[in-house]
Amino acid sequence: MLNGKIIFKILGGLTLLEGICMILIVPVALWYGDGDAMAFLISGLIAIAVGLFAYLVLKADRENMGRREGFLTVTLSWIIFSLFGALPFVIHGAIPTFTDAFFETMSGFTTTGASILNDIESLPHGLLFWRSMTQWLGGMGIIVLSIAILPLLKIGNMQLFTAEVPGPTPDKLHPKLKETAKRLWLIYAGFTAVETILLWAGEMNFFDAVCHSFTTMATGGYSTKNASVAAFSTPYTHYIITAFMVIAGTNFTLAYFGLHGKFRKIIKNEEFVFYISFLVVAILLVTLVLNLVTGFDGEKAFRYSAFQVVSIVSTTGFATADFALWGPFLTLFIFVLMFTGGSSGSTGGGVKMVRLLLLAKNSRSELRRLIHPNAVIPVRLNHKAVPQQLIYNVQAFMVFYLLITGFSAMIVSAMGYDLITSLTSVAATLGNIGPGLGEVGPSLNYAHFPAFGKWFFSFLMLLGRLELFTVLVLLQGAFYKR
Amino acid sequence: MLNGKIIFKILGGLTLLEGICMILIVPVALWYGDGDAMAFLISGLIAIAVGLFAYLVLKADRENMGRREGFLTVTLSWIIFSLFGALPFVIHGAIPTFTDAFFETMSGFTTTGASILNDIESLPHGLLFWRSMTQWLGGMGIIVLSIAILPLLKIGNMQLFTAEVPGPTPDKLHPKLKETAKRLWLIYAGFTAVETILLWAGEMNFFDAVCHSFTTMATGGYSTKNASVAAFSTPYTHYIITAFMVIAGTNFTLAYFGLHGKFRKIIKNEEFVFYISFLVVAILLVTLVLNLVTGFDGEKAFRYSAFQVVSIVSTTGFATADFALWGPFLTLFIFVLMFTGGSSGSTGGGVKMVRLLLLAKNSRSELRRLIHPNAVIPVRLNHKAVPQQLIYNVQAFMVFYLLITGFSAMIVSAMGYDLITSLTSVAATLGNIGPGLGEVGPSLNYAHFPAFGKWFFSFLMLLGRLELFTVLVLLQGAFYKR
Repeated sequence: MLNGKIIFKILGGLTLLEGICMILIVPVALWYGDGDAMAFLISGLIAIAVGLFAYLVLKADRENMGRREGFLTVTLSWIIFSLFGALPFVIHGAIPTFTDAFFETMSGFTTTGASILNDIESLPHGLLFWRSMTQWLGGMGIIVLSIAILPLLKIGNMQLFTAEVPGPTPDKLHPKLKETAKRLWLIYAGFTAVETILLWAGEMNFFDAVCHSFTTMATGGYSTKNASVAAFSTPYTHYIITAFMVIAGTNFTLAYFGLHGKFRKIIKNEEFVFYISFLVVAILLVTLVLNLVTGFDGEKAFRYSAFQVVSIVSTTGFATADFALWGPFLTLFIFVLMFTGGSSGSTGGGVKMVRLLLLAKNSRSELRRLIHPNAVIPVRLNHKAVPQQLIYNVQAFMVFYLLITGFSAMIVSAMGYDLITSLTSVAATLGNIGPGLGEVGPSLNYAHFPAFGKWFFSFLMLLGRLELFTVLVLLQGAFYKR
Repeated sequence: MLNGKIIFKILGGLTLLEGICMILIVPVALWYGDGDAMAFLISGLIAIAVGLFAYLVLKADRENMGRREGFLTVTLSWIIFSLFGALPFVIHGAIPTFTDAFFETMSGFTTTGASILNDIESLPHGLLFWRSMTQWLGGMGIIVLSIAILPLLKIGNMQLFTAEVPGPTPDKLHPKLKETAKRLWLIYAGFTAVETILLWAGEMNFFDAVCHSFTTMATGGYSTKNASVAAFSTPYTHYIITAFMVIAGTNFTLAYFGLHGKFRKIIKNEEFVFYISFLVVAILLVTLVLNLVTGFDGEKAFRYSAFQVVSIVSTTGFATADFALWGPFLTLFIFVLMFTGGSSGSTGGGVKMVRLLLLAKNSRSELRRLIHPNAVIPVRLNHKAVPQQLIYNVQAFMVFYLLITGFSAMIVSAMGYDLITSLTSVAATLGNIGPGLGEVGPSLNYAHFPAFGKWFFSFLMLLGRLELFTVLVLLQGAFYKR
């Protein structure tokens, strides 16, 4: 029997926390006086009431928390957060339909950044702040999820990627889960604070600086401006955001090592080296082509290239330019970049660098195996032989990812959308990026989809954010049987 | 040391055979009197002279034929066939540049069917016949390759797919390689003859009937008409070609069993059941949508749907309609179908049904493994547990296939082509289909690509036709070292 009580108790506790977050926005809303304070007060009280009820009334035995309860709790917590998080938008009326509000909030908590808002700037400050905050909270959730929870649930052999972190030996980050989470959050909050100050020192006002820092560190990509980061014109702002998008796409445990001066641990991390090398090569290539295609001078071509490449690879989704207008090669290149993703243990989504690295290494081994069919050629990562089962699992992840992309694109095209819109809207939501190409290009949004489409994309965002398997396991009847 | 002599000796023998085939076309060309007989006489004599020289002069020890010699011989034989096969087009002048002639011939021998001809019907009968014949000979080559040679070379664990065929036990097809090849060719030729008679009985003249039967059974797709099969208007002709495309995409060893009344062996073959079920579902879906989108009546929608679905899945590439005009859903659906392919042991190319079936089965097992992480859930095919290594290899094939598609599409887009043209031209050549979408749509061709593009596509056709690994192994320096 599934232990439903413990699940609801945990979800109740989380809802309580979300309610408190919403109440914390009331003073922000009052400060700017845009008339949205009441929406946060009501939403916050509803969430607190429901959360408190579930948390206090249900008597649950914490010891009865198994793998199955873990799966359900993780997926349901993102859904519950989005359900309650959508309330302020609906109660205020800025987003009149619940479908749109749910889409916008799920896009926030999954750090996707796909929007249904045609005029972002018309939103009151409180709602803009909440919108950015959903991403920041979502990013927090992902850090715990990827570093602490998924390894425990043995999902997708994630425990093997992150074996660095938990455990009793002294050189590990920290043996205790709660402590680990706290330290990583401190790093996350610290980076957010530093970025806020740096952005504020430039052309942004304090409000925009906080909001953009929230959504940069979460690799979310929500902006307070209709034109996204293109609304800010100084190279300084572009470079600061680029740098912090790179950081946000990096394994946060490495940042911990970095802050403690253990740079050797960073340099020796193959995923990190691959991530940085990949970015460098991609940025240089795009700079070169952009210079040829658009005639931008060196610095401008480099800046636009760096911003857009990092924005897509880290799955942030900010835009400083409409890359759909950059000619056929760069359009296709950006489409291919949509199937990369940040590092494991970062807030970035998508396929992720470590999987691409393992696939690349395994492909090389496969080619060698063609010449020596009976030789044992292990794939090594960080100087350790990678278990066959992990490679196998990474390949299965890739196959699922592409199958889901193909099937989902067909569903989108059945709503009347062209091939490019269908493929990239799916890649951009499943990969938690946000903007795609065609009718979901960087200067457009997801408002024009029918309600069914919006619920479908919400599902894809959740599926991608929770590494596919966490959600897929729940879709099987056998999961609920003894 | 590589035994170059034996390789050249075998290639010499094959060139000799190709020369004889060309000489056999001389009477055809004379009969129609289009003035192309001399081109075949010259080309044939050149091929015979070169072939005979290599075959007779080189003294080679047959015993020294290893795996490496096998790889080189297979890949080189397709290249040599295309080099000599291009001669008649160039000598006659119908295709003035060698690049175009080589592309057209490689597209023939790889049974792809991509063309650079803007006016097919202006070709003399001899050249049209040779064009169809390159595909028929290519199909013959593929049957031997997939059923006899690749298993010996242990490429892509193909020996496990086709374990049914060689071997000493009495219920196998036939223990001896030469005998196996002969019997399969007899079946291949038999089907070709039956289709010729059936097409001739309809609206086609004898010449068109032979040419289309050649290219149907090879899943090649070259037509003698500019409009492809759309030039023939009777439903009878469409249905006959559809039926034979289905057969051509079936494992030929099953046809052998069928002709000997062993129908249980066919019904119990899971790849066959999957292939047929897949076709039925896809055809019904496309029929339904086509009826909704175009307003075609039931029979017409079914006929066009069946023809086009089977043409793409079997990787033939014939067209009775411009499916690029069938609306967004069907366009995307056909794009996805481009990543399927015929059965193993057929003349069809692409990813192939058995690989898709194994990926589907393994995906189901992976989902079950999420619930029971420590359970051993083997994948079974034809009631036998599939070795882990084979699943692993199929996944690696898929990863290579998609990586090559992505990289190649970027190369095509760098020549200035849009995303859809870039992606589908690669999918259509690597998958040996022929027509794609966009600027390589069913009513267009590959003439507009620059010379580099044509050589690049020729390489992709070869790579796809030889199951990737046979060619990739040759691209490694280590292959040529002791």
